[in-house]
Amino acid sequence: MTAIKLQHRIRELGISIGKMESGERNSITDVLGVSVGHVTLIRGEGRLTPGHGPIRTGVTVILPHEKNVYQEKVRAGVHVHNGAGELTGALQVMEWGLLETPIALTNTLNVGLVHDAVVDYMIEQNPDIGDQADVVLPMVGECDDSYLNDIQGRHVKGEHVFEAIKKASEDVAEGSVGAGTGMSALGFKAGIGTASRRTSSLAGELALGVLVLANFDGDLCVDGVPVRRKLQATKDSQKTNRSIITVIATDAPVDSSQLHRIAARVPLALGRVGSRSSNSSGDISIAFSTAERISASSGQVLIPAQTVTSQLLNELFEAAIEATEEAILNSIFMSETMKGRDDHVSQGVPVDEVLEIMRKHGRL
Amino acid sequence: MTAIKLQHRIRELGISIGKMESGERNSITDVLGVSVGHVTLIRGEGRLTPGHGPIRTGVTVILPHEKNVYQEKVRAGVHVHNGAGELTGALQVMEWGLLETPIALTNTLNVGLVHDAVVDYMIEQNPDIGDQADVVLPMVGECDDSYLNDIQGRHVKGEHVFEAIKKASEDVAEGSVGAGTGMSALGFKAGIGTASRRTSSLAGELALGVLVLANFDGDLCVDGVPVRRKLQATKDSQKTNRSIITVIATDAPVDSSQLHRIAARVPLALGRVGSRSSNSSGDISIAFSTAERISASSGQVLIPAQTVTSQLLNELFEAAIEATEEAILNSIFMSETMKGRDDHVSQGVPVDEVLEIMRKHGRL
Amino acid sequence: MTAIKLQHRIRELGISIGKMESGERNSITDVLGVSVGHVTLIRGEGRLTPGHGPIRTGVTVILPHEKNVYQEKVRAGVHVHNGAGELTGALQVMEWGLLETPIALTNTLNVGLVHDAVVDYMIEQNPDIGDQADVVLPMVGECDDSYLNDIQGRHVKGEHVFEAIKKASEDVAEGSVGAGTGMSALGFKAGIGTASRRTSSLAGELALGVLVLANFDGDLCVDGVPVRRKLQATKDSQKTNRSIITVIATDAPVDSSQLHRIAARVPLALGRVGSRSSNSSGDISIAFSTAERISASSGQVLIPAQTVTSQLLNELFEAAIEATEEAILNSIFMSETMKGRDDHVSQGVPVDEVLEIMRKHGRL
Amino acid sequence: MTAIKLQHRIRELGISIGKMESGERNSITDVLGVSVGHVTLIRGEGRLTPGHGPIRTGVTVILPHEKNVYQEKVRAGVHVHNGAGELTGALQVMEWGLLETPIALTNTLNVGLVHDAVVDYMIEQNPDIGDQADVVLPMVGECDDSYLNDIQGRHVKGEHVFEAIKKASEDVAEGSVGAGTGMSALGFKAGIGTASRRTSSLAGELALGVLVLANFDGDLCVDGVPVRRKLQATKDSQKTNRSIITVIATDAPVDSSQLHRIAARVPLALGRVGSRSSNSSGDISIAFSTAERISASSGQVLIPAQTVTSQLLNELFEAAIEATEEAILNSIFMSETMKGRDDHVSQGVPVDEVLEIMRKHGRL
Repeated sequence: MTAIKLQHRIRELGISIGKMESGERNSITDVLGVSVGHVTLIRGEGRLTPGHGPIRTGVTVILPHEKNVYQEKVRAGVHVHNGAGELTGALQVMEWGLLETPIALTNTLNVGLVHDAVVDYMIEQNPDIGDQADVVLPMVGECDDSYLNDIQGRHVKGEHVFEAIKKASEDVAEGSVGAGTGMSALGFKAGIGTASRRTSSLAGELALGVLVLANFDGDLCVDGVPVRRKLQATKDSQKTNRSIITVIATDAPVDSSQLHRIAARVPLALGRVGSRSSNSSGDISIAFSTAERISASSGQVLIPAQTVTSQLLNELFEAAIEATEEAILNSIFMSETMKGRDDHVSQGVPVDEVLEIMRKHGRL
Repeated sequence: MTAIKLQHRIRELGISIGKMESGERNSITDVLGVSVGHVTLIRGEGRLTPGHGPIRTGVTVILPHEKNVYQEKVRAGVHVHNGAGELTGALQVMEWGLLETPIALTNTLNVGLVHDAVVDYMIEQNPDIGDQADVVLPMVGECDDSYLNDIQGRHVKGEHVFEAIKKASEDVAEGSVGAGTGMSALGFKAGIGTASRRTSSLAGELALGVLVLANFDGDLCVDGVPVRRKLQATKDSQKTNRSIITVIATDAPVDSSQLHRIAARVPLALGRVGSRSSNSSGDISIAFSTAERISASSGQVLIPAQTVTSQLLNELFEAAIEATEEAILNSIFMSETMKGRDDHVSQGVPVDEVLEIMRKHGRL
Repeated sequence: MTAIKLQHRIRELGISIGKMESGERNSITDVLGVSVGHVTLIRGEGRLTPGHGPIRTGVTVILPHEKNVYQEKVRAGVHVHNGAGELTGALQVMEWGLLETPIALTNTLNVGLVHDAVVDYMIEQNPDIGDQADVVLPMVGECDDSYLNDIQGRHVKGEHVFEAIKKASEDVAEGSVGAGTGMSALGFKAGIGTASRRTSSLAGELALGVLVLANFDGDLCVDGVPVRRKLQATKDSQKTNRSIITVIATDAPVDSSQLHRIAARVPLALGRVGSRSSNSSGDISIAFSTAERISASSGQVLIPAQTVTSQLLNELFEAAIEATEEAILNSIFMSETMKGRDDHVSQGVPVDEVLEIMRKHGRL
Repeated sequence: MTAIKLQHRIRELGISIGKMESGERNSITDVLGVSVGHVTLIRGEGRLTPGHGPIRTGVTVILPHEKNVYQEKVRAGVHVHNGAGELTGALQVMEWGLLETPIALTNTLNVGLVHDAVVDYMIEQNPDIGDQADVVLPMVGECDDSYLNDIQGRHVKGEHVFEAIKKASEDVAEGSVGAGTGMSALGFKAGIGTASRRTSSLAGELALGVLVLANFDGDLCVDGVPVRRKLQATKDSQKTNRSIITVIATDAPVDSSQLHRIAARVPLALGRVGSRSSNSSGDISIAFSTAERISASSGQVLIPAQTVTSQLLNELFEAAIEATEEAILNSIFMSETMKGRDDHVSQGVPVDEVLEIMRKHGRL
């Protein structure tokens, strides 16, 4: 695996998605307090030896705010568009409308160990969990990186989860990093991508940010242009039927039912980029709002929030669609060609050719 | 209301959606046995006088097969992407996975009278309903045509429902007909549209057809080109926040759970054409399969079906996405500018300008 | 049909359900502002002549508060335990978490006409519906009274719906009244029943009331005693596979997601009274809260509410279970033997024998 | 912790639940091919030292059939009545209607390690997982045993999971064994319980069996008698708000949608035994059928099945309710008083007193 060239975010290439303005960082961390940490594991080449490598995987952690999220829970909603994937803890979020742990993303077979590590972290932060306090159900999402990675090896260990949490910051690396290291989407190398939108309302300036772990099937469309079908040379030797986990953060004062509805706009963005949501794809989204905090001890709201109007809700829907589309494109355009186990190659998107196609199609 | 010019299906304009082949008619009726009937009500002009007009509405009926559907039920699944709409009978289809009535579409406030008329029809066909046999729950879906139509007037009467059933055939009129008469979508006059795809499998040649009642919010994209944003003159004085009901038929031997999954691919097509699935939009889909018939009297399967492979399922997913996208475009391109109540005007899509934009964007 | 003897509420017979206190009226109208109106239609005897009778049916309307519910919407949640029934408008309540119409209950085939009448009523109250204002989706629930009633006749007309609304009051008649007129449950004549519970919290005295339209299958248990199996003489010639619609009102400050969860406690009460939730049973519940009002024009909350603690939520769950169980028993014990079409007889519960059984089982 | 006396299944005490006949073993293993294995971990006494004990926990594994379940998948459905719990893999079962792994049950914080161990087991059985074959999502359910157990210690290790699988047999130990070791329900010590029902149909003799991991809140009712409220001495010092995982097996030829519906009857049984399905309770059920096997390689059905009639479906619903009620009672009556961490005591149900109460209430 070698980096072939510098990658650019889709916006830097002159391609803008939608009509809303992005936030300052154009990142999920434009929602104040949200931070993201990655640990990337790349080791070995050549033939797959299960348990030894080659390794092309990692873990990504999203922290909803800078405080103790178990003590100060946030409202959240989960939407399952296609359930052929895993997001542990999803049932509880759907029932309670509350998020009380970080969200960790990794490869499919590593869910158990990452889950266990998040339990370690939660106990470290809250030593009374399972003693005087309630137990906790971590949120761990996954995609399948077995085309490039020794997935049987489960190389993400507890220490990597702790490291990712520790490294979490407002600067979000994209492409083949963290959980995205060995992922591919829409015919090309992909991984982690992020983007954001902002809107003004009576409640002031509001932000909505998205982070995707993109690993799904389909034919890449860039701003509506079916670039993959125009690229003659593209072969797709990869296994199909994969997944996308989408994490949406906002500081808008929405309740859990509205967060579910925001998460339910993700399939619209999937359609725009060329997904067909195939049989084995886990298309799962979680949206949370930092506007309210709910106290673990009292169940009381620490920071109350107003009700949003339907107009603001529509803007948040639009923001979610636009930011998800752009985050997916960033996950691809920020990734480079990667060679993995058994010399499997996931081609990076050929940027120059794509730009040429975009030009021919009246964009740029 | 006057017809300004002849309209064309999107395919006749040289625009092809997706990569799969369409069926012979490129219609929901490419699924053998399915028939569709419309009654279109257009009367009066000028100022709205509730109860009198102007009238721009109608009813559309889809018959799943040529026999008595109460006696020979078909497998079905409903997907609710955004529930701000009505499809009566949906809860029962979700529970049983069976469809036992025609599907009728009309305007929002006419749901009750159309429901009552379908009860009349079902009793006429099955005089023992509610006597020796079970009762029946009709399926009636709706969109809001109040921008053009005197919707308070509820001008669709029982006789119109019977007439639509009687007229049902394999030839499906599109645009401002039937339930679609007063509808608009994506910034332009819209209404009824249909399209189909076919695929080959071990089980032989299979068809999947879609019919939409399109009345939803967003900015029209044609094959990925954001034409509405490129058209300077477009004003949107209309009320937003409307709906789309999608009916999918297939002869593939899929079960009710798989039909639900096929119906769940509709949001991907909505994303492609520019929907934002706004707060007040009822985005509701029903898919049914004619491959199996279930006897009302015995509960036994009259025509057994095989299980489909995941590869075939993926093809059906793709077919549903492509046919829904094309059906929506047909609903718009087959509609002409219409003037309705209070001289409200819903502009037909300006075909020549759109084709010019498409050309500039490397299509055609 | 003749009244054989005076009926008593279960509590007057010395049987108390659960451990919480009931409200003053032990009725859904213990939630301030809620009112209920019935119109009961009983006419003719003997052989069924579809369209003419005998008639054993009616309509029941629940008004959430004394003001215009379209202008001042309330939070609501719907739970579908078994969907083989109809509650129109349910999809919208599930999506928005708001109730904006009265709730009407009637027989299965009358849903259309009652729906249409509620549209009439809504327009009368809000003349701008479908003109300047949005359209409206009425909530109409149903059970099948065809064992006793000429259900094909659809004898509930618009005037009956208006009359039921006009007559709505805090005094709720039970048994064979309104929509409950021709219903049966758990082997005996049943119909409408109501009950309530109250609880104290930091937010003050709170009430939760339940009204059921009971028409479902199973073997009656009274406070856990399987009385139906102990009664030798009971025959069940009736069609099985029927439904129960449960309406829950509370003044507790709960959100729509919590209201959904409260509605989801109904199956626990169904288990207690002996339901088996059979294949054709529509077990559908709606819960609403009068604590908040949401303005139609602004989308703003008119009366804000606090968040409830999990302890209060548990009390509301318990209240919903207890009040539903008692409401179901009231629907049976307040009903008398009724003879209907084709001389079909639905036996009233034999109160003296039941009390004797209860005594032998250590109750009373 | 010491065993105080021999425990009996509820049926051996002369208490019979419902009216259907049980299978030969009155166990989930009456469904041919199903086997269950437990590993019970009891070590240490006195004060809690997180990571060291006292230990009162374990793991229980249910194998759907005697062959490789990844190679020969079975149809399955999941029902979430109250989602405040975890059952990993549930989203995929809900999407696909297929079960392809054993089901493992353990304590809440041990989900991660048990998940990882099931991955080990699946790879051992199917070395091509994540290489040539697809990845796998294990099913791991949990309840919270922290009242008695050092739950932070996560004492269930991979070796215990393998041991439980190895020991799986048709003889199912009940009470404080396996995952049930440290659990309590309805005010008393509880844990694992099982029961079954059988029915005859045109398809021959059919069986439905249930296994519960019972750890939920409420007041114990035995066959409708509220015994807990009659027992003066009962204190409930325990944390409330806990869970129940229910596993239902059948050899009836039902599809995944029908299995979902069977799983949805569990709340009716919960109501009968006195649950209030409290805020923090994860009431999650999975039902699977051994009647059909679906090939991993071809997606084809290996053993085809007929469609069931609604009458048979109703019998299966009844069977599920009765067997779940009896399994819960067995989980309590087969458990003895247990002392755990910090000398917390979970009282075994006082059998003699309960029998006396039952006698006074006309049972036995």
